[in-house]
Amino acid sequence: MHFTSEQRLDDGVLEREFTLGEIPGILWTPASVSASAPAPLILLGHPPLGLRKMYPRLVARARHSAAEGFATATIELPGSGDRPRWPAAEQARADLRRAMEAGEPVSDDIIDALTLPMVEKAVPEWQAALDALLSLPEIGGPVGYSGGVISIGIRLAAVEPRISAAVLFAGSFVPRALFEEARQVTIPLHVLLQWDDEGNDRQAALDLFDAFGSKEKSLHAHLGGHTGVPQFAGDAAAQFFTRHLK
Amino acid sequence: MHFTSEQRLDDGVLEREFTLGEIPGILWTPASVSASAPAPLILLGHPPLGLRKMYPRLVARARHSAAEGFATATIELPGSGDRPRWPAAEQARADLRRAMEAGEPVSDDIIDALTLPMVEKAVPEWQAALDALLSLPEIGGPVGYSGGVISIGIRLAAVEPRISAAVLFAGSFVPRALFEEARQVTIPLHVLLQWDDEGNDRQAALDLFDAFGSKEKSLHAHLGGHTGVPQFAGDAAAQFFTRHLK
Repeated sequence: MHFTSEQRLDDGVLEREFTLGEIPGILWTPASVSASAPAPLILLGHPPLGLRKMYPRLVARARHSAAEGFATATIELPGSGDRPRWPAAEQARADLRRAMEAGEPVSDDIIDALTLPMVEKAVPEWQAALDALLSLPEIGGPVGYSGGVISIGIRLAAVEPRISAAVLFAGSFVPRALFEEARQVTIPLHVLLQWDDEGNDRQAALDLFDAFGSKEKSLHAHLGGHTGVPQFAGDAAAQFFTRHLK
Repeated sequence: MHFTSEQRLDDGVLEREFTLGEIPGILWTPASVSASAPAPLILLGHPPLGLRKMYPRLVARARHSAAEGFATATIELPGSGDRPRWPAAEQARADLRRAMEAGEPVSDDIIDALTLPMVEKAVPEWQAALDALLSLPEIGGPVGYSGGVISIGIRLAAVEPRISAAVLFAGSFVPRALFEEARQVTIPLHVLLQWDDEGNDRQAALDLFDAFGSKEKSLHAHLGGHTGVPQFAGDAAAQFFTRHLK
């Protein structure tokens, strides 16, 4: 991990851009953090729209988390931002757009092609980022994962024992194969659902919540579309992490 | 309304028992409250098990609310505690028990007989209690309704304009007629659901949440059975009232 830039935000949060091999990322640490008082870490997931485009929302989440004493970090997803595309994903995105514009159901084939290769590529990258981040003296455990593409969150929660709790956003189509992995997840989960999400299948989201193997899981469904998650839902998610990571 | 007893709890909360005609009730007010600084009010709903049996849980909710600056009040439900039973309700309860023990689906007839007469009787009583409570100088508006038999909460939220926000517990069977009334509800709602509630129909609860006409509504589903609502769910409900009643 190489730090490539560093700036102090007005609330004292230290923002550092880094690269991990060819993957760009950003780390935010609260002003109060030091090697003798390391911060627990929340990995910030995000949709595959590119870190640059997502920056305003990510930095808002990072500042909010820093105020609660958490370090946060994120990395660019494969196929997003300046990272190379792959043709099958482009094709799947076009197929999805066509199906949704035609008002047709989104087939399992489209969902799989859109999601599974991204999960396969992304999860080892987030694990490598975790290796690097946890080697920094100012970052302690435990680690949470928050938001973004829920299929990546499911896989990470299932395979990465260093993740202790996760806030998942049931806001995108989930391949059937990931439902099986959801049964392997046992960490505490706080699942968000937008009740009228245009680009999601509500019943599938409810079935997914049901499938998670966790003994502590809660579903928080709010009226509104994909981008309408209310401010107080963010506060409740922050309280979930405070309960489980502190 | 006649106050029949008064005691100061150890945290300074004033607990007063009262009767409203033949109906017993309890009012709790925070220590800090006075005629010049009246408190907003939360009506505490409860299951039809009798105030005496419910007292430990009610007083815990009252203390929690008082710490947030809320007065709380509750009254005995018709057919509960020392109030007269009516034969049709006794019959419906026996029918419900028999159906559940036999693992049979609970028929609409049983649900209607169990619930509709109680709603018909209880709602005007809660409204009369509200008249009396709001005439006290130490109680101000706005008013919230919390918990208890959800069918009573639906009807109250639909017909009583002085109720500004409600926490509803989707933990009992709801007559089909109340689904229509749910569409008339427009106040902010915070709906609790226990995902594995033995005595409830999960899909009906989800359909009910969908039916509410409110623009701000959120569903908070937690793993576990009817009585397993976690402590942090109570905290989130309290924050909902603080957002809407203060």
